[in-house]
Amino acid sequence: MPTEVRPASPDQAELLRRLLAAGLLIESGVPGVYGHGEPFERVRDGLDRLLTREARSRGAIKLRFPPVLPKRHLESTGYLGNFPHLAGSIFSFDGSESEAAEQAERAADHADWSEFQSQTEVTLMPAACYPVYPAVAQRGRLPEGGLFVDAGAAWVFRHEPSMDPARRQIFHQHELVRIGEPDVVLEWRTEWAQRGVELLRGFGLDANLDKANDPFFGRRGRLLAANQRAADLKLELLVPIAGPEPTACASFNHHMDHFGSTFGIELADGSVAHTACLGFGHERIVLALLATHGLDPDAWPQEIRSRLLEDE
Amino acid sequence: MPTEVRPASPDQAELLRRLLAAGLLIESGVPGVYGHGEPFERVRDGLDRLLTREARSRGAIKLRFPPVLPKRHLESTGYLGNFPHLAGSIFSFDGSESEAAEQAERAADHADWSEFQSQTEVTLMPAACYPVYPAVAQRGRLPEGGLFVDAGAAWVFRHEPSMDPARRQIFHQHELVRIGEPDVVLEWRTEWAQRGVELLRGFGLDANLDKANDPFFGRRGRLLAANQRAADLKLELLVPIAGPEPTACASFNHHMDHFGSTFGIELADGSVAHTACLGFGHERIVLALLATHGLDPDAWPQEIRSRLLEDE
Repeated sequence: MPTEVRPASPDQAELLRRLLAAGLLIESGVPGVYGHGEPFERVRDGLDRLLTREARSRGAIKLRFPPVLPKRHLESTGYLGNFPHLAGSIFSFDGSESEAAEQAERAADHADWSEFQSQTEVTLMPAACYPVYPAVAQRGRLPEGGLFVDAGAAWVFRHEPSMDPARRQIFHQHELVRIGEPDVVLEWRTEWAQRGVELLRGFGLDANLDKANDPFFGRRGRLLAANQRAADLKLELLVPIAGPEPTACASFNHHMDHFGSTFGIELADGSVAHTACLGFGHERIVLALLATHGLDPDAWPQEIRSRLLEDE
Repeated sequence: MPTEVRPASPDQAELLRRLLAAGLLIESGVPGVYGHGEPFERVRDGLDRLLTREARSRGAIKLRFPPVLPKRHLESTGYLGNFPHLAGSIFSFDGSESEAAEQAERAADHADWSEFQSQTEVTLMPAACYPVYPAVAQRGRLPEGGLFVDAGAAWVFRHEPSMDPARRQIFHQHELVRIGEPDVVLEWRTEWAQRGVELLRGFGLDANLDKANDPFFGRRGRLLAANQRAADLKLELLVPIAGPEPTACASFNHHMDHFGSTFGIELADGSVAHTACLGFGHERIVLALLATHGLDPDAWPQEIRSRLLEDE
């Protein structure tokens, strides 16, 4: 039974139509899965360079990770308890020649071949910061003051098919992660939330910071969401894209000692590290720019062009 | 039953040990799935820029695609008949609250939770050129002379766990694709195979072109491989990485009308387009450079540095 596809609002449907017609997005046949045309990538590249430079100038080290995560890490984080509806797991074939032939025959008919697939040791990446924690834990005790990691614009997967062009199943999440003493981490999040507002307003976007919660699953999830809000653990940067309802284009998350204790990340004095992360959604920011300034980046205001496209 | 992990040769095991110790690669716990440290990415970025520039200066248009492919496209290409052992499919959860709770409990115990997962409409990307064909078919008839597409360094998945650091389950394949008249396409492949040799030799690598075949599955696969060789459809650029046995770092593939007829790509005169593609394996080329010139790019010969790292 295929998962229900969320419909688009009339504004969202119109934006998607224009993006496809202009060749900025390329339809794949699956809602929320698109290719990118040249002008779209030109803006996204500019954003990527700018965020990378901002992070580097403030002491970030660069680590990069693929779009798959060891299943064991996903299991350890509790992601499947909180977001079972969003996770993607990877299956593959490990059967005989006759099973392979039967599978290929069904696939050629676009019939069901799932029974020949079995679960592998990897899943899709649910959030770009996840592989950072075990990687940092491997390095041993943190230096005094902790660590600032730029995990770059990694591909992350969320199984939520939608006709809203801003709601992708697979997209670039540019994550910066701070790992260290509790006060250092909290201050870093506050500072970067403010920097995020200034950055997006500097692009001419109507960006506003607000308290938020993650889309936790089910009845238990409502309680988790309320707790997250009460403890002020998640902020989002909201920007209008299509229609009046704004879309979250970045989030700033405080994890307390959740990842530190899960993966055994130790501060210089041996106590458990706190962590925070922030994620900029590349595709959503590019969409907000295109919706605000028009579909042709060459016709954007000079100030925005020089900020984003200057060093091409 | 987990798929068997191919062991490393002593030379490969030693190279992997050195790469991990130097922080160039980051262990994930799954064979063939690694993070990249800063110096590794620095070289890979340089290679990416150089290949992008080479393609652009020869008229390529840039299209970019995510690491997932519509299942329907994978089915249409016949990939599951030829390479069932390498394909990765994506499953997700679509059940009740009580099933979600049971799944989470099993996951927390690192037990089997596969029965709660069902197949989605997407698979992992098997080769970076696959999404190009339906995208080009959508544009309608090709212009005279066809089209040259730079699909960039996309993430592709091959389910073949191995302890050889050059054999990844997930890696960047930089694909260039030529779609057009039969003679134009064949000439393009010949020209780029020669350019590939010169490019890698220019990096100080001992690169040699050879006839090759794809790793087709099973008994039927042996026949397909023999036919592919006889028809001269695949060339590989071989470079020593760890030990005397060279590794394929790039391939140059002639598809005749396979993708053109599968996806309905029409030439200007309405006949079926031919296609060819070439893929440079980013990670393998970076490994070859590190193995040849040493693990510290700053200590490489000036000529190689200026070629690869000049415009940082």
